[in-house]
Amino acid sequence: MRIEGRPYRTIWTEADRKVRVIDQTRLPHEFVVADLPDLEAAAVAIETMLVRGAPLIGGTAAYGMALAMLADPSDTGVEQAYQRLMRTRPTAVNLRWGLERMRAVLLAEAPSGRVDRAFAEAASICDEDVEICAAIGRHGLDLIREVAKRKGGGPVNVLTHCNAGWLATIDRGTATAPVYAAREEGIDLHVWVDETRPRNQGASLTAYELLHEEVPHTIIADNVGGHLMQHGQVDLCIVGTDRTTRTGDVANKIGTYLKALAADANEVPFYVALPSTTIDWRIRDGVKEIPIEQRADRELTHVTGRDALGKLHTVQITNPGSPGGNWAFDVTPARYVTGLITERGVAAAKEESLVAMFPEQAKGG
Amino acid sequence: MRIEGRPYRTIWTEADRKVRVIDQTRLPHEFVVADLPDLEAAAVAIETMLVRGAPLIGGTAAYGMALAMLADPSDTGVEQAYQRLMRTRPTAVNLRWGLERMRAVLLAEAPSGRVDRAFAEAASICDEDVEICAAIGRHGLDLIREVAKRKGGGPVNVLTHCNAGWLATIDRGTATAPVYAAREEGIDLHVWVDETRPRNQGASLTAYELLHEEVPHTIIADNVGGHLMQHGQVDLCIVGTDRTTRTGDVANKIGTYLKALAADANEVPFYVALPSTTIDWRIRDGVKEIPIEQRADRELTHVTGRDALGKLHTVQITNPGSPGGNWAFDVTPARYVTGLITERGVAAAKEESLVAMFPEQAKGG
Repeated sequence: MRIEGRPYRTIWTEADRKVRVIDQTRLPHEFVVADLPDLEAAAVAIETMLVRGAPLIGGTAAYGMALAMLADPSDTGVEQAYQRLMRTRPTAVNLRWGLERMRAVLLAEAPSGRVDRAFAEAASICDEDVEICAAIGRHGLDLIREVAKRKGGGPVNVLTHCNAGWLATIDRGTATAPVYAAREEGIDLHVWVDETRPRNQGASLTAYELLHEEVPHTIIADNVGGHLMQHGQVDLCIVGTDRTTRTGDVANKIGTYLKALAADANEVPFYVALPSTTIDWRIRDGVKEIPIEQRADRELTHVTGRDALGKLHTVQITNPGSPGGNWAFDVTPARYVTGLITERGVAAAKEESLVAMFPEQAKGG
Repeated sequence: MRIEGRPYRTIWTEADRKVRVIDQTRLPHEFVVADLPDLEAAAVAIETMLVRGAPLIGGTAAYGMALAMLADPSDTGVEQAYQRLMRTRPTAVNLRWGLERMRAVLLAEAPSGRVDRAFAEAASICDEDVEICAAIGRHGLDLIREVAKRKGGGPVNVLTHCNAGWLATIDRGTATAPVYAAREEGIDLHVWVDETRPRNQGASLTAYELLHEEVPHTIIADNVGGHLMQHGQVDLCIVGTDRTTRTGDVANKIGTYLKALAADANEVPFYVALPSTTIDWRIRDGVKEIPIEQRADRELTHVTGRDALGKLHTVQITNPGSPGGNWAFDVTPARYVTGLITERGVAAAKEESLVAMFPEQAKGG
């Protein structure tokens, strides 16, 4: 998508096999392209959230494997790279998926061919992700089109939480893909952007994307969505997910569950957009089986922003001496999810619907 | 309650008829006592949230009337002071209550006696509020004691939103009064403090109070409460209210409604602590009849905090160019409220229960 009118992906290579990413920790304050020279740089980029979002983590991990092959294309090199990257983020299920695919492909190749093979495979993973997001966009567009038709005038109001936008994927996004598709079709729409504390991915990343793509939007505190739904100001919610069970329970950024409860109470459709690679077909009970990452309190107690002179400062905004707790995700039980927008279509958040859409997974779980 | 071990109220007078308040816009970064020399200073203190919280707004408005009498004790002076103070905050119902009481008392007095009468009446309003909060504390203590008995070990986990603490009242607080009463009785308890965006009253004020009163607590993002309730980490919620209908609908800080929905979904008791002066006996439907104040976007887009060297900075934390929306309150329908903790006891959030407890109001509405 566009930044200052110029098209970008979130990760790309240049002719000399350099891997480049947008440093998302600097947004929205600065647009900086970061160079990932080696495996360790790729791993640290994931750990420190220079790149974030399940699909982009998968793509970066794939390129991390490729960068590792430049240094050591042996079987040990493959295995060590796999292990190093697997440790970076515990919740993202398609990190595992991307790494397993890379490892299998590389071990099937002679070491001398592994560099070429790895870069080609990582590029395929990224290209496939773009196609998946485009397909999610087409299926989600149908839902937005229906709302627009039913309303018969005025913008379709979409609420989203966190950033499941193009910055979280390789391009187009998951939750935002239907929004971008609707805008391209000329549908009048407006997005309520949850700020998404404590890391503010909505206020900093989703708002940044939407502004550069010229989609009308309003940033709101995470506390506001219930009030808006109660007053008919939200037509549908679309969020992303880091991990979904085969029964349709959805782990996503902390606070998603509260919005799903409000949507349920106010009869607002609540959709989750996801590439099927984020479905964990091995598990059935999201609340019991998905471990929730706890991150440093400092993400809650401190924020970084620009002062009136344009200078960046990191400041503490909480009472000094008071401890903080920082759970990064929560689980929305399937009963609050109206539908799952996948690359193959919109499935009900139920095992039978998901398995009907992905019959190759019928035996798992 | 205590700050650095020394007892304070939030508003007090000194011998020379000076009115003093704690400047709450400076907390938790600085403890500053502000002087309110005249009516206009009192009105601006309410408007700019130097003082906030329904009971403290009522007390400050009462002293504002008294300060006005120093300058002009005529009937016109009474009426102009009433009008000026009434304009300061649209949502707080006991602002109206306090001002009407002051006006009635002053108009019944000869102008020559109005200064003395006004300071005495404002002092009574404040003393009565302290007694009301103490009574709320005693009734709420019964609820906490029951939970402690039922759990039979481990802390009672209370979740609260915004600041309905002693800083929002004259002393002891409304939602925190049961917490302080429980601590004084030696009950093991722990408070989850919602940060409460966009103004962060939880992270800055409630956490500040609890730390100085040595009550164990943890600051969490507003997004976290649903996850904690889903995992049995919250025994009860206690929040305050700015305005409650005679049917038990509760207007409180934006985001309260989302916590009430989560409490309902997870069978966590959800209590609202309130002096009966915040009940608006004239209205029945909170969602339709309570106007919701929209405040400046800047409260959402900018925050103030201290850097590592202790210097204060105000920084923008949202994407520049993206608009924000800032609704200050929401309404929690009575069906999600387990009970209303008033100075007379705990009432169900129903008209018949409230009127049975306050029979003098049977004819209103």
